[in-house]
This record gives sequence, structure tokens and C-alpha cells, in this order.
Amino acid sequence: MHSFSELVTLFEERLNNTMPFPDRPGTLYEPCRYFMTIGGKRVRPVLSLMSNELFGDINEDAWHAAMAVELFHNFTLIHDDIMDKAPLRRGKTTIHERNGLTSGILCGDVMAIYAYDHLASIKTALPQILHLFNKTSIEVCEGQQLDMDFENRDDVTIEEYIEMITLKTSVLLACSLKMGALLGGASESTAAKLYEFGKNLGIAFQLHDDYLDAFGDPRKSGKQTGGDIKANKKTYLLLKAQENANHLQHTAIGTLLTRDDESKVPAMLSLFGNTGADQACRDAVKHYSDMAFHCLEEAAVVSVRKKPLFDLATYLLGREH
Amino acid sequence: MHSFSELVTLFEERLNNTMPFPDRPGTLYEPCRYFMTIGGKRVRPVLSLMSNELFGDINEDAWHAAMAVELFHNFTLIHDDIMDKAPLRRGKTTIHERNGLTSGILCGDVMAIYAYDHLASIKTALPQILHLFNKTSIEVCEGQQLDMDFENRDDVTIEEYIEMITLKTSVLLACSLKMGALLGGASESTAAKLYEFGKNLGIAFQLHDDYLDAFGDPRKSGKQTGGDIKANKKTYLLLKAQENANHLQHTAIGTLLTRDDESKVPAMLSLFGNTGADQACRDAVKHYSDMAFHCLEEAAVVSVRKKPLFDLATYLLGREH
Repeated sequence: MHSFSELVTLFEERLNNTMPFPDRPGTLYEPCRYFMTIGGKRVRPVLSLMSNELFGDINEDAWHAAMAVELFHNFTLIHDDIMDKAPLRRGKTTIHERNGLTSGILCGDVMAIYAYDHLASIKTALPQILHLFNKTSIEVCEGQQLDMDFENRDDVTIEEYIEMITLKTSVLLACSLKMGALLGGASESTAAKLYEFGKNLGIAFQLHDDYLDAFGDPRKSGKQTGGDIKANKKTYLLLKAQENANHLQHTAIGTLLTRDDESKVPAMLSLFGNTGADQACRDAVKHYSDMAFHCLEEAAVVSVRKKPLFDLATYLLGREH
Repeated sequence: MHSFSELVTLFEERLNNTMPFPDRPGTLYEPCRYFMTIGGKRVRPVLSLMSNELFGDINEDAWHAAMAVELFHNFTLIHDDIMDKAPLRRGKTTIHERNGLTSGILCGDVMAIYAYDHLASIKTALPQILHLFNKTSIEVCEGQQLDMDFENRDDVTIEEYIEMITLKTSVLLACSLKMGALLGGASESTAAKLYEFGKNLGIAFQLHDDYLDAFGDPRKSGKQTGGDIKANKKTYLLLKAQENANHLQHTAIGTLLTRDDESKVPAMLSLFGNTGADQACRDAVKHYSDMAFHCLEEAAVVSVRKKPLFDLATYLLGREH
């Protein structure tokens, strides 16, 4: 069995040795290569590999699934960055900023197709794997559309927000785990438990991320806090604060959303506290984390083999165990 | 056996009855539905159906291939229209103009995935079909990238131009035919002949299209001529005129490319004539058409069954037989 960091190293070695892009046209593939190598935690491919390793040695099919899921994830990031007009990703220039809109669109498109080409090399249960991957990919697009829609709405509910992050983020983690399991020979019910583990892990991770963006320690994360607040992003914290707010607090939040000065972040943080949104967010993280760990425990695999997945989830959620 | 128009009707019935998009999120799927129903000649799906019918009744697998290829083609059009900043497609507003850039990107993305989901339902030779489709899809992206690159280059050769239109247009026609044939039980060599028929047909069609844009009869085509000339588009005619031009003609072409007045089109047409580019273009159309019809004749199927494909190619190339 391998740890997270061991699998990241193995995955990146394989990525560098079998980088699927040819040389020409360089205008298409150079930005693809650039984007695939500027980092990222490689969580999704590692989840596929770990869930495959629950059932024996990692097989070739799982490597193809891991490569497919990482290519697909990067395709979505490239296109999301265009839609979000983001200049940076992982601290580096985004493709549309670096090479223009055409490159951003086309590099994303071709990367998605390369993902499918890895899937096409899978020897086991190919139709089942393809349908799972397609269903998930469609959901990821739907989640991104909902996220975009939410920017123009002011009646987004907590329930809708959870649905959006589930589609946009969690189902791909869940799919990565389920593919690895199915390709390791897991039963449908065990694979389904691992899917649910990934889905709840993803939701908990996103809510934890929302929380850290507001209340995290910049010395620990290396990130400035308050970015979501400055951008008026409809996170769990803001939606919950609006839901819980009394009349005065509601007006105060509304006023803060129109402002753009230095006191905006501390004022909003204090409203998150006064409305109990901060506690509700911590509770929600715990709720989905508990569900995730429960699903992992319930998967019909000897406990000792689950340790790498358990450790990875613990690390991602910043939990002490 | 069915004619082109019969298969278009059958395909559109199926498209309307089994339109693959769900209702929600409406912001994602309403533009997808819009774009899939604003027309288009449906040449690619019909080629899949016709080549399948060479070998017997059209089977379910061929219907899935036909739907996949039409969805994929529309995905590329939606993204191409963004890159070309095109306000209209088939006389109707393009998605990015109608619903914004985000919709254009995401509708294209999700349509490509729906194409793959149709492929995933194919019961015969799935890995082979997938690899063929992926190879083709990658080539289509490469062709689009080359087309974009050519806009910023002034040393494009005729050979490079043929490569570009082959990748951007022809290989998808070729793939449509080959998929239909393989799914009808064709041997690899017969399927390969049909692929070559489609590839040459596509090149001939594109060159014919270049020719008609300059010299066509607007009363017959319903289109204004000279659009490519006004846009300084690097078509076969312009590249050939530059290749054949003497020093004076070369200077004249260069000057025309910087102009934007009413005499630009007739002046360029006369240069196409004087340099022999018009005749060279007609010769090239004939060369690739002849190759196409030769490949179709060589495919090991009784001649009478090839009639619909023969008629369709004749119609597309505006040839008299």
C-alpha cells in the first residue's frame, strides 16, 4: 500500500513519462503541457489509485482512470478560469491570460478528449466506467452552470448551494473513487459506499474551504483570508448569515455587499459570528465529514487497507484524529 | 435503402423524440436544445447511417454513432463561433451572442459529453469505435488550432492549407462513414476505403465551398459572394494566387489585402483569374472528387447499395453525373 505522497510521486512520474500530448501544433499542446505541470494536489487521480489498491496491486486500468480524471479536472479548470475571468491558477498565469481565449477554449476541449482516450484503453467493464464518467462529467458542467447562475441571483438557498458544490466538486471525487474500486473488482455495493465517501468528503472539503477563506490562519494556509467576502461570493457562510439574520443584521449584510473598503471583511466576519453562521458552518463540515468517514468504515474491505484513504481524508479536512 | 432526405427526416424525428438534454438547469440546456434544432444539413449523421445501410438494415449502434457525431459537430461549431466572434450561424444568433460567453463554453462542453454518452451505448467494437472517434476529435481540435494560427501567418502553403481543412472538416466526415461501416460489420479494409472516400469528399467539398464563395451564383446559393475576400481569409484561391503571382501581381494582392472598399472583391477576383488560381481550384476540386468517387467504387459492396452515398456526394459537390 502507498501513502498519498508516494502516489503523487508515482502519478507525476507517469504523467511526465507518458505525457499524452504530441509536439504539433505547438500552439495547441504547449499550453496543455504547461497547465498539466504547474501543480495541483493530484487528489482525484490519487483517490482512484488508492481505491484500486484497496483490492490488490494497482492495475493498468486504474492508471488510465487516474490519468483520465486528472486530465478532465484540468480541462474544467481551464474553462472555469475563462468564465471566472481569473488571471491566476495555482499562483501561475491562466491559459486564456497567457495564450488568449482561443487557446483557453481549445486546450480545454482537447484535454477532455485525451481524458476519454485514456478511458478507451480500459479493459474492464468499459461501458459501466464510461457511463459513470459521463454522468459525472455532465453533473460537473451542470454544477458550473449553477455556480454561474448563482452570481445573478439573490435567493439562493443553503440546499441549492449544497447541490451546486456537490455537482461542481464532489461527484468527481466520488467518481474517481468508484472507478478505482470497480477496476479493482469491487462489488457494486462496496463501490457505491466509496462513491458516497467521496461525495461527502467533497462537500465537507468545500465547506471547510469556505470557512478557512473567512476564518483561516494565513500563516498556516499561506493564503490571504477574506477573498470570498471581498468578491461577495455566495458561500455557505454568507447564505447562512442571511438565513439566520434578524432585520437589522439583514440590512447590515445588504449594506456591506455594496461596499468595498478595508472594514468590509472584519465587519462581515463579525456578522458571520453574530448570526451563528460560523458555528453552523463548522457543524456542517463535521456533519459531512462524519458521513464520509462512516461510509469509508462501512465499505467491505479490511480496515488496515483503508488507512491511506483515511489519512488522506483526515489531511484534506484538517481534522485531528 | 434510404435517400439523403429520407434519412434527414428519420434522424430529425429521432433527435426530437430522444433529445438527450434534461430540463434543469434550464440556463445550460435551453441553449443546447436551441442550437441542435436551428438546422444544419445533418450530413455527418446521414453518412453514418448510409454507410451502415451498405451492410443491411440500420442498427441501433449506428443511430448512436449518428447522434454522437452530430452532437460533437455542433459542439465544435459552438466553440468555433466564439473563437471566430461570429454573430450568426445558419442565419440564427450564435449561443455566445444570445446567452453569453459562459453559455457558449459550457453548452459546447456538455454537448461533447452527451456525444460520448451516445458512444458509450454502442454494443459492438466499442474500444475500436472510441479510439477512432477520439483520434478524429483530437484532429478536429488540431485543425481548428491551425486555422486560428493561419490568421497570424503570411507564409501558409497550399500543402498546409489542405492539411488544415483535412483535420478541421474532412476527418469527421471520414469517421462518420467508418463508424457506420464498422457497426454494420464491414471488414477493416472496406471501412478504410469508406474513410478515404469521406476524407477526399470533405477536402473536395471545402475547396468547392472556397470556389463558390468567390465565383458562385448568389441566385443559386442564396449567399452573397466575396465574403472570404472581404475578410482576407486564406483560402485555396488566395494562397494559390499568391503562389502563382508574378512580382506585379504579388504587390497588387498585397495592396488589396490592406483595402476595404467596393472594388476589392472584383479586383481580387480578376487576380484569381489572371494568376490561374481559379482554374487550379477547379482542378483541385476535380482531383479530390475523383479520388473520393474512386474510393467509393473500390469499397467491397455491391454497387447498387452505394447509390445513396454516390447521390449525396454528387449533390454536395454540385457535380453533374
